[in-house]
Amino acid sequence: METLVTVERGAEAAISKSEFRLHFPLRVRWAEIDAQNIVFNAHYLAYFDLGITEYWRAIGLPYPDKLIYEGGDLFVVKSLINYHASALYDNQLEICARAARVGNSSITFALAIFRGEECLVDGEIVYVFACPETKKSMPLPARLRDAITVFELPR
Amino acid sequence: METLVTVERGAEAAISKSEFRLHFPLRVRWAEIDAQNIVFNAHYLAYFDLGITEYWRAIGLPYPDKLIYEGGDLFVVKSLINYHASALYDNQLEICARAARVGNSSITFALAIFRGEECLVDGEIVYVFACPETKKSMPLPARLRDAITVFELPR
Amino acid sequence: METLVTVERGAEAAISKSEFRLHFPLRVRWAEIDAQNIVFNAHYLAYFDLGITEYWRAIGLPYPDKLIYEGGDLFVVKSLINYHASALYDNQLEICARAARVGNSSITFALAIFRGEECLVDGEIVYVFACPETKKSMPLPARLRDAITVFELPR
Amino acid sequence: METLVTVERGAEAAISKSEFRLHFPLRVRWAEIDAQNIVFNAHYLAYFDLGITEYWRAIGLPYPDKLIYEGGDLFVVKSLINYHASALYDNQLEICARAARVGNSSITFALAIFRGEECLVDGEIVYVFACPETKKSMPLPARLRDAITVFELPR
Repeated sequence: METLVTVERGAEAAISKSEFRLHFPLRVRWAEIDAQNIVFNAHYLAYFDLGITEYWRAIGLPYPDKLIYEGGDLFVVKSLINYHASALYDNQLEICARAARVGNSSITFALAIFRGEECLVDGEIVYVFACPETKKSMPLPARLRDAITVFELPR
Repeated sequence: METLVTVERGAEAAISKSEFRLHFPLRVRWAEIDAQNIVFNAHYLAYFDLGITEYWRAIGLPYPDKLIYEGGDLFVVKSLINYHASALYDNQLEICARAARVGNSSITFALAIFRGEECLVDGEIVYVFACPETKKSMPLPARLRDAITVFELPR
Repeated sequence: METLVTVERGAEAAISKSEFRLHFPLRVRWAEIDAQNIVFNAHYLAYFDLGITEYWRAIGLPYPDKLIYEGGDLFVVKSLINYHASALYDNQLEICARAARVGNSSITFALAIFRGEECLVDGEIVYVFACPETKKSMPLPARLRDAITVFELPR
Repeated sequence: METLVTVERGAEAAISKSEFRLHFPLRVRWAEIDAQNIVFNAHYLAYFDLGITEYWRAIGLPYPDKLIYEGGDLFVVKSLINYHASALYDNQLEICARAARVGNSSITFALAIFRGEECLVDGEIVYVFACPETKKSMPLPARLRDAITVFELPR
């Protein structure tokens, strides 16, 4: 008989806040917990979105004012969450984000949410830069690529 | 220059509604679309949850009345979504679900959401049956396992 | 010592489904209940919105395609909810709506949500037809006024 | 032809932040705006709830740990919102709350949400202290009444 933590966290045992450049505080709302007294699973994806919002702000290109240009916009094409432990009402959390891969037209964010030093969930969100009308992918604007590169540089 | 659809749907090109035993209709709410005029990415996870709710009902074990017993409850440990195309306001969708793998203490659901014959998103949700207090995983109750097996039998 | 029902429902004791022209079925989602095991209070306002969406559809002017014209759009300026009893998970509800007052530029909807014959909440939503840019109120388009009048006629 | 602001804010023209003891900052999330590019009307009720959460914390009786006792819990029996202007994505708002009336078993909160000095919405939420099982109203616990009285005292 194993604990969820052991079963699920094996590979990610090493996840720590120091791997992420962006940290953002968040308090769990009453409306976000369900009858199990824990945050409903879909809300973590909304939390990830908040982390990425702050990421754009942190690199100097707040969405959408400075990120929608050259005819393109960002669309989510993949999201993944691994749940290790449950956030509870009024918990003070920390959303952490890192641009883990930057492709020709896509960006993969690694994300994790911590309560103190405990990693509750981790996962990833993949964005593609594409035309809002045709949905054709487009090369990432150079200044977006550059801003990410500078932000993620080891300091 | 490729379309999102081509880029992202390669491997899943074969996904069709006929692969899923459970079909559930859903209309997109105004509150679920964002300023891009499309369903906000986190809401698809809530849609998946609706599909699984109907799955439990369809196999005769509606949650939570008949699924919480023998001291255990179901917890999500992983969720994955691949986004191929965007659902719009008032779209009539179909949520499709299949119990793709049943382990000792876990169930993996394959899910997809269609608009007509077009697959908008697909993904999976993994549940673990565990003790609510200790969060230790427990073997799936036999009647849950049996009900799934019967429901998923080729007909 | 009085019951909530007695205290709160005094004046509305007579509310019945027959007062409303528009009826729309709704099932409570898991994500909509909170740790009190009841629907979170804000979600009833989202339910009202669903009822009004169906109202527009029922009168032949689905929003936004046929309701945004002549340079105007509809904005909520007031919402009121009286809570009499709590909706629970998976409850099958009925949202009821009636255009109770139609002014020069505003429409007041009376709304109520029933579980069987029991009125769980009632309230109202007031819309003003206004210019999206300047937010100046505008006269209601004649065809909107006419469609409401015809729909609400005693039959 | 009048502006919404003039039409709707007449009576409340005098609302200012100084009337409220409790102030709480909030930034609008992307998921909270709709295709009109404004916060969806139901979310203001969720914002009010956040303000009241902070109110309980501010008076030293955080919900639910210190507020659920003596066999009672708090239930919303009425909510009212007047909408004057729209909050936009990423707006930095201030939720303001005041216990406007304390009855035998009920508390009426006056609430308002500001963007800078501009009052976007105001309204009220009425709670009744009642038994969770029977839903019968109960007298407010003395320490709750006392904590509110002390907090609202002119300083």
